[in-house]
Amino acid sequence: MLQDTPPAAKTSASVNGLASLQRYFPILEWSRTYSRLALSRDLVAAVIVTVMLIPQSLAYALLAGLPPVVGLYASLLPLLAYAVFGTSRVLSVGPVAVISLMTAAAAGGVATAGSPEYLAAAIALAMISGLMLLAMGIFRLGFLANLLSHPVVSGFISASGILIAASQLKHILGVKAEGEDLYAIGSTLLRHAGDANPYTLGVGLGTILFLVWARSSLKLFLVRRGIRRQAAGLMAKAAPAVAILLTTIVVAAADLPAKGVKTVGDIPIGLPHLVFPQWDPVLWSKLLVGSLFIAIIGFVESISVAQTLAAKRRRRIDPDQELVALGSANVLSSMSGGFPVTGGFSRSVVNYDAGAETPASGAYTAIGMALASILLTPFLFYLPLATLAATIIVAVLSLVDLDKPRELWRYSKRDFAGIAATIAITLADGVETGVLAGVAISLALLVWHASRPHAAVVGRIPHSEHFRNVRRHEVLVAPHLLTIRIDESLTYLNSRWFEDFVFDQVAKNPEVRELVLMCSAVNWVDATGLEMLEALNRRLADSGVILHLSEVKGPVMDRLARSNLLDELRGKIFLSQNEAFEKLAPAAASEGHLSKPDIVTGGAK
Amino acid sequence: MLQDTPPAAKTSASVNGLASLQRYFPILEWSRTYSRLALSRDLVAAVIVTVMLIPQSLAYALLAGLPPVVGLYASLLPLLAYAVFGTSRVLSVGPVAVISLMTAAAAGGVATAGSPEYLAAAIALAMISGLMLLAMGIFRLGFLANLLSHPVVSGFISASGILIAASQLKHILGVKAEGEDLYAIGSTLLRHAGDANPYTLGVGLGTILFLVWARSSLKLFLVRRGIRRQAAGLMAKAAPAVAILLTTIVVAAADLPAKGVKTVGDIPIGLPHLVFPQWDPVLWSKLLVGSLFIAIIGFVESISVAQTLAAKRRRRIDPDQELVALGSANVLSSMSGGFPVTGGFSRSVVNYDAGAETPASGAYTAIGMALASILLTPFLFYLPLATLAATIIVAVLSLVDLDKPRELWRYSKRDFAGIAATIAITLADGVETGVLAGVAISLALLVWHASRPHAAVVGRIPHSEHFRNVRRHEVLVAPHLLTIRIDESLTYLNSRWFEDFVFDQVAKNPEVRELVLMCSAVNWVDATGLEMLEALNRRLADSGVILHLSEVKGPVMDRLARSNLLDELRGKIFLSQNEAFEKLAPAAASEGHLSKPDIVTGGAK
Repeated sequence: MLQDTPPAAKTSASVNGLASLQRYFPILEWSRTYSRLALSRDLVAAVIVTVMLIPQSLAYALLAGLPPVVGLYASLLPLLAYAVFGTSRVLSVGPVAVISLMTAAAAGGVATAGSPEYLAAAIALAMISGLMLLAMGIFRLGFLANLLSHPVVSGFISASGILIAASQLKHILGVKAEGEDLYAIGSTLLRHAGDANPYTLGVGLGTILFLVWARSSLKLFLVRRGIRRQAAGLMAKAAPAVAILLTTIVVAAADLPAKGVKTVGDIPIGLPHLVFPQWDPVLWSKLLVGSLFIAIIGFVESISVAQTLAAKRRRRIDPDQELVALGSANVLSSMSGGFPVTGGFSRSVVNYDAGAETPASGAYTAIGMALASILLTPFLFYLPLATLAATIIVAVLSLVDLDKPRELWRYSKRDFAGIAATIAITLADGVETGVLAGVAISLALLVWHASRPHAAVVGRIPHSEHFRNVRRHEVLVAPHLLTIRIDESLTYLNSRWFEDFVFDQVAKNPEVRELVLMCSAVNWVDATGLEMLEALNRRLADSGVILHLSEVKGPVMDRLARSNLLDELRGKIFLSQNEAFEKLAPAAASEGHLSKPDIVTGGAK
Repeated sequence: MLQDTPPAAKTSASVNGLASLQRYFPILEWSRTYSRLALSRDLVAAVIVTVMLIPQSLAYALLAGLPPVVGLYASLLPLLAYAVFGTSRVLSVGPVAVISLMTAAAAGGVATAGSPEYLAAAIALAMISGLMLLAMGIFRLGFLANLLSHPVVSGFISASGILIAASQLKHILGVKAEGEDLYAIGSTLLRHAGDANPYTLGVGLGTILFLVWARSSLKLFLVRRGIRRQAAGLMAKAAPAVAILLTTIVVAAADLPAKGVKTVGDIPIGLPHLVFPQWDPVLWSKLLVGSLFIAIIGFVESISVAQTLAAKRRRRIDPDQELVALGSANVLSSMSGGFPVTGGFSRSVVNYDAGAETPASGAYTAIGMALASILLTPFLFYLPLATLAATIIVAVLSLVDLDKPRELWRYSKRDFAGIAATIAITLADGVETGVLAGVAISLALLVWHASRPHAAVVGRIPHSEHFRNVRRHEVLVAPHLLTIRIDESLTYLNSRWFEDFVFDQVAKNPEVRELVLMCSAVNWVDATGLEMLEALNRRLADSGVILHLSEVKGPVMDRLARSNLLDELRGKIFLSQNEAFEKLAPAAASEGHLSKPDIVTGGAK
C-alpha cells in the first residue's frame, strides 16, 4: 500500500495515528487527494462496469439457483464496503461464476433450489463466509490461502468452468436437469433432451452465437467503422447487455412465454431492506464447511486478480486488509439479501482498462446498480433465462485453461498429477470435494518431495572456493575426507532417509576418516532431525569417523546452540566449506584428485 | 543388511539369484554360517527372554481385554515368522503394551470386551494389519512411517503409558472400570473405588512394590551376593516371573478366589489350531482404520528398536523387509488365534544384552513358549489378574518420558507444541484420535514453517569467496547490487511471501539496479514457485531492475531448463555467487562498503 507523505503541520503522534487508521481504512488515503480528473475517469469506468455487471449479476444469481434480483442486491453494498476497506484501486467486487457455483453446491446440500430455505441458506453463506474472512483478516491468517497451489487452483477453476457450462445447458434447452457433478448433470440432461423447447433453444443458441461473435470480432468490427481501438474494446464488453436488451424485446413482442420460453418474471421493485440474517445454529453449522471453501476460494481468486493488476501500476496490496475488505463486503451482501461475492477477473480488467483511478469507481458502480434496481426491474419481466444462461456459458468457457496442464506436463510430472487429479475429482464429485482434494493433493506432493530429498557428495571446483556435486563437475576431492551437501531441511520426513544416505556413503568409502555435512541448504532442523544428528555423531565416532558441520546458517545455529549437539559433536563447525576443506585436507586443497563427473547438467554452466 | 561374500565356485547368475533370495529371506544368509558358539548364545538368550515373555504375553492379552491364553498364542508362530523374514538379529517380536491398548480400543469399537465377537475382532485386527504391513513392504511404502515425527511418537507413547496404567488400576482394586480416555477411566474407577476387594488390593500392591524394588535394587542386591554383574542384570529381568510364581502359590494356598480375588481360571491346554479368520466384510471394514493405526504405530515402534540395536553392532536393517517380516508375523498370529504383535523394546534389549547372535534366538523362544503353553496352563488357573496388572503398570510407567518435553521446550517451542498437543489429545480422547492428531500436528507444523521461510540479504566476507547475511556479519556490499539468499525451496506455500520480501527489499533500496537470487538453499521449485519467478523477472524489469540467479543446483537447473524462465530471464545464471559479485560489482569486490551487522549469532563462528 503506497502512502502519501503526511502534511508537515501535524504532530508525529497524530501522523502515526493517521497512518495506522489509513491502514485499516485505505479510503482515508486516496480520498484526500481525489482530483477532478480521477473523478471523471472513475465515472467513465463505472458506467462501463455497470453495463457489464447488470447481466452478470442476474446471470450468476441464476447459476446459484437464486431469483435474479438477489444478484442485483449482491452488487450494491458490497461494492461500497470494498471502496472503504479495499487496498486494490481497480478490483471489481460482486457475484462471480465459481463462487456462485459453490453457493449452489453448499445451499443445495441443505434445501431444494427455489425454496425459501434455499434462499435463506445462500444469504447465510454470505454472512458466515464474510465473518470467516473478517476473522482471518483480524488474526492475519491470509497465508492460509497459500495452502492451495497454483496448479490446483488452475485445475479447480477449469473444472468449475466445465461444470458451470454444463449446468446452464438446461436453460438453453428449456428442460430440467440437476446434479453437482458432470455425470449427474449430463445424464439428467440427456434424459430430458427430447423435451427441449424449440423457442427457448432458438433464443439460447442465438445469444451464444452473437456473444461468441462479439467476443472474437466485435472490437475489430467497431474499429473498422472508425471507432477508436480502446473505446471499441470497451464497447464490445457491452455485448451481453445488448443481447439482453434484444432478446427481451423479441420475447415480449412475440409473446414467447406463452410458447414455453421461461423468463425472469415478476421481481420486487426497489432497493433491499437491511436485516441481519436469522441466527439459526443448526443451519449455520451445516453450512460451515461450504462457507469456509467459499471464503478461501473467493479470497484466492480475488487476491490473484488484485495482485496482477496492482503490479501493472507498481502498487502493492495488503492481503490481510483484503481479507477485511472482502469479509465486510460479504457481511453487507448478506445483510442486504445478497449471496456470496468476491473480486471478479473480467470486470476488474475492464475497470482497469477503462481507466479507473480509485475505488470510488466501485462506489459509482454501486450507484448505477441501485438505479438499475429501481428503474429496470419492471423491464426484466420478459428477460429470458436462456439469454442469461448463454452469457454464463460464453463467459465461463474462458476459465477453462488447457495450456496450463500441457505446460505442467513439461515442467514437472508431479505438478501435472496435481492439476489432473484436481480436474478429475472436481468434475466427478463437484466443487466441494474438488477444493478439499486440491488441498490434500498439494500437501501430499509436498510431503512426498520432502521425504525424498536430494543429497550430493561435493568437492571443490579448481581455482575457486566453490563446492559442487562430484557427479556433475570436475572437482577436487580427498580420499579421507567426505563432504555431503544435503539439499533439504532436516525434518522428521527425511531424517531416516538422510541417515541411511550418510551410512551408505561411509560404507562405500572405507578410507574416510572425516565427514563434513555442508549445511548451506539446511534451512531448519526440527527435533527429529536434531536427534538424528546426535545419533549420527555418536555412531560415526563409533566407526572411527569424525563428524563436522560447515556453513550452518545463523537461525539454524541459534537453535542448535540450545541443544546438546554442539557439546557432543566430535568435530568442528566451520563457517565456510572452503575453510573446512583447507583445514581438513590441506594437501588435497592444492593438488588433490579430480572427480569424474557422470551426469550432463542441462543448461547449467 | 550385511551380506557375506558368496562362495567363489558359483556362477555370477546364481550368485545374483541367491543374493536376491537372501534379501527376501534373511534366514538364508545367517543360517549358512551358523556356529556352535552362536547356538549356545542364542539358547541362553532364548531362555531369559522366554521367562520374561510368559508373564508379558499373559498380561498384555489382559490389557487388550482378551483371555490370557491369546497372549501365549501370539508368542509362538509370529516369532518363527520373524526369524525367517526379519533383518534385525535381536528384535524380539510378540505382544507389546501400546499395541495391546490400541487393539482394545479398536476391538472395543465393534464388540463388548469378553464376548466371542470381541475375540474375533482382535484376531481380525492382527490379520488386517498384517496384510497392510505386507502390502506396504511389497510396495516399498516404509517411508509412510516418517509421517510421524519423533516428538509426536514420544508424546503418543508417553500418553499411552499413562492410559495403560490407569486402565489396569481396576484389576489392582478388583473393581469394574472402562473407557478409552483418561477422564472416562478415572471417573468410573472413582465411582467403584468403594467396592475395592482388600485381598485383591493386597496382591496387586504387593506385586507392584516387589517389582518396583526389583527394578531399582534387585541387580545390586544380587551383585552384593557375589553374582556377576551381567548375570545379575538378566536375573533381575525375571522378577515378573517370580512375582507370578509367588502370588499364584499364595492365592492357591489361601484359597483367595473364594474371597473375591479374580484369577486367570480355566484355559485350554495345548497349542492353537491354525485357521484363517473368517472373512467378514462388515467387521473388516469397521476395523480398517484401527488396523492401519496398529500397523503404523507397530512398525514405527519396532523399527526404532531394531535400528537402535543394529547400530550398536554396526549392522543395517532394511525397513521394507521389516514390513514384510512384521506383516507375516501378524498374519501368522491371527491364523493361530493371536492378536496384533510387533517388536518390543524391553525384550529386545534383554535379548541383545543376553548375547543373542541371530534370529534363531527368537525361534528358540517360540519353542520355549510352546512348552509353556503345554505344561504351564493348568498351573495358571490360580494366577491372579492383579499380579498381571501390576506387571503391566510397572512396565509401562517407564514409557512415560518427562525429559523429552523439557528438552523440546528448550530446543523448539513448535516441536514442544507438537508433543504437548499429542499427549493432551491422546489422554483426552484415546489412542486412535491421538495417532490421527499426531500426524495432523506434525504436518501442520511443517506447513506452518515452510510458509514462513527465512531469507537474507547477503554480502561477501572480506578476503573470501563466502557470502553471509549482512545483518549477522561484516561483509562487502555494493549499493546498486542486491543479493538475496532464500533459505527454503520455492513452493506454493511460500511463493507469495517471497515475492513480497523481494519487492520490500527493492522498495527500501531505490538505487538497486541488479538483483541476484542466491539459490544455494533452493532445493526445488514447484510450478507455483516457477510462475512466481517468471512474474518477478517481468515486474523487476518493469521497474528497471535486472534479475539474475546464482548457485542454482543441478536438479533444479535441469527442471528450469524445461520451462520458459531461462529464455525470458533478463539477467544471467552464475555458477557461483562470487562470480556474480565479481562480474556485477567489480569495484565493490575490491573496496566496497562493509555492512554493519546487528544480530549477535549464538555459537556461530
